[in-house]
Amino acid sequence: MRNISELRQDPVTGDWVVVATGRAHRPNEYARRRVAERSQPKSSCPFERLLPEAVLAYDTRGERVTPTAGVRPSLERSWWIEVVLNKYPAFVPTTVCPVPRAIGPYHWQDGVGFHEVVVTRDHQRSIARMTTAEVAMVLRAYRDRYLVLKNEKCVRFISIFHNHGREAGATVSHPHSQIIAIPVIPPDVARSLRGSRGYYRRHRRCVHCVMLEFERRQGWRIIHENEAFLVICPYVSRQAFEIRIFPKRHEPAFEAASEDELRAAADALQTALAKLARGLNNPAYNFFIHTAPTARGGRAPYYHWHIEIIPKTAIWAGFEIATGIEIATISPESAAAFLRKQSA
Amino acid sequence: MRNISELRQDPVTGDWVVVATGRAHRPNEYARRRVAERSQPKSSCPFERLLPEAVLAYDTRGERVTPTAGVRPSLERSWWIEVVLNKYPAFVPTTVCPVPRAIGPYHWQDGVGFHEVVVTRDHQRSIARMTTAEVAMVLRAYRDRYLVLKNEKCVRFISIFHNHGREAGATVSHPHSQIIAIPVIPPDVARSLRGSRGYYRRHRRCVHCVMLEFERRQGWRIIHENEAFLVICPYVSRQAFEIRIFPKRHEPAFEAASEDELRAAADALQTALAKLARGLNNPAYNFFIHTAPTARGGRAPYYHWHIEIIPKTAIWAGFEIATGIEIATISPESAAAFLRKQSA
Repeated sequence: MRNISELRQDPVTGDWVVVATGRAHRPNEYARRRVAERSQPKSSCPFERLLPEAVLAYDTRGERVTPTAGVRPSLERSWWIEVVLNKYPAFVPTTVCPVPRAIGPYHWQDGVGFHEVVVTRDHQRSIARMTTAEVAMVLRAYRDRYLVLKNEKCVRFISIFHNHGREAGATVSHPHSQIIAIPVIPPDVARSLRGSRGYYRRHRRCVHCVMLEFERRQGWRIIHENEAFLVICPYVSRQAFEIRIFPKRHEPAFEAASEDELRAAADALQTALAKLARGLNNPAYNFFIHTAPTARGGRAPYYHWHIEIIPKTAIWAGFEIATGIEIATISPESAAAFLRKQSA
Repeated sequence: MRNISELRQDPVTGDWVVVATGRAHRPNEYARRRVAERSQPKSSCPFERLLPEAVLAYDTRGERVTPTAGVRPSLERSWWIEVVLNKYPAFVPTTVCPVPRAIGPYHWQDGVGFHEVVVTRDHQRSIARMTTAEVAMVLRAYRDRYLVLKNEKCVRFISIFHNHGREAGATVSHPHSQIIAIPVIPPDVARSLRGSRGYYRRHRRCVHCVMLEFERRQGWRIIHENEAFLVICPYVSRQAFEIRIFPKRHEPAFEAASEDELRAAADALQTALAKLARGLNNPAYNFFIHTAPTARGGRAPYYHWHIEIIPKTAIWAGFEIATGIEIATISPESAAAFLRKQSA
């Protein structure tokens, strides 16, 4: 039986944190240790098999082969991508939605939700080295699980993200992404929604569309462009070499992307990651999708979904943690000029 | 001549970032490299001398010996703490306050301000291993510079912080702290102020005082207590083993601390850091002071200054960066119980 995690709300800022002791450790396991940076051997990799409990799988041709009736040998040979439940979930499903509770001046609720892992078959090959068709299959798995999870009761936001490299928090080196569906709208997403809504009310326009128009006119921060997506280093970058990928068409919801759009998004994502890997010698990075919440039926017409890539080019130190102001030591314009000329 | 850095404002969230190309690098300097973790040799340490440009210095007895008239040999022997200008400042002074500017949909202004470094003499000995009197001298240097910088025009907030260990962003291993005075109120501080003000308006009480009262009554998260300060693992911890140090007396402004209070704060800080070092085998950490802004004369009666210590016990990965929701894998209650029994 799993421990349920706790969502605790900061009484000052209203922000949430998760206390997930279901991923339990003893205190002294946090003691500082030297960790060798290398990929894990295939033999001890937890992601080398098609797992019977996979909730979704595709074979190499992109056909759905979800092993609902057990893993047959032919599937074991042909699977290329699978979605499995995280073995150490930060959020776990229950039969009832969480009830807000209080202890003294504090508010908390059960960390109810879903935590899944998207695994591609190759033990080494990261997204930067996949074909566009392969990356499109990854995005399709994201979307297909998103469409299922958004209908679960209690779910208000779904976060899809990918950690590459140990410095970016990847504890398993085999390429994988994660999908976490949670019962609250996260503070950073709430701020972004609030800002987008405020701009929309004042100007009757999507602030992201306005920025994209300016970026295309000025051109300084564009790294790559295809028929449906623009890849830029944002004017306000939180980290050196930060990259954002925007659909050119105004669309609040990632899950509304068509097959054609997923393929164009795959080209944009693969190109951005390949340029980053080539330019900066395979740095660690995180990427994630920002999209409208599922709460209230996802009605956020002022929002514009996108992908953010945050390479680990610097450590957030005391000033950044204390203030929330990040210091980038290279301008987004120089970073974009550098990445633009890298081959993908 | 130094480049002036830029403060850029996110058009969606209103958050600020700094583009500080005065600390310039070429793009390929960001390429991933292996970095050996060790302390730098004394011979090449930039902080081994009393610098003629020091803006403040004390000798071992705590007497002020600021070398305004040049460094004499007796001072070179006796100095124990100095405050110098950062050689690679993120913010630089100018004669005029910055003017808000716009380019397309974006707003920015010059990164005007001050960036100083507080250096203690011993090349190896960190705060955890100092005497209370020595730590009190460090806090006194913070306060004395704070009192000078708060009267500089254009300054609206002063951030005092300390990075310990390479994983926490310390690029020089010689123990040192930093003071950054900036012309905007940082987003995270603004949120904390807004939340404190809101609570005060609703309840006519300081939310921090209410929390401290509950913490003392419950006792579960207390690590250490002296006559004037309480050291706790906060109920809402952003990181495993996070620690906060609060004055028991309600006081919005750090710089209002008396000599006695600075000494009690020094005991609290040294004790917390020593317990952390002993319990977790000298982990990297950041600590910083959160205090009322200097803007508008620092009138924030609903606020309560404090010190936050954030050990690098985990990496903020995709989920944390995407959502602003941190996942702690040990409860603050267990962390406090573990730290409480460590010797200081």
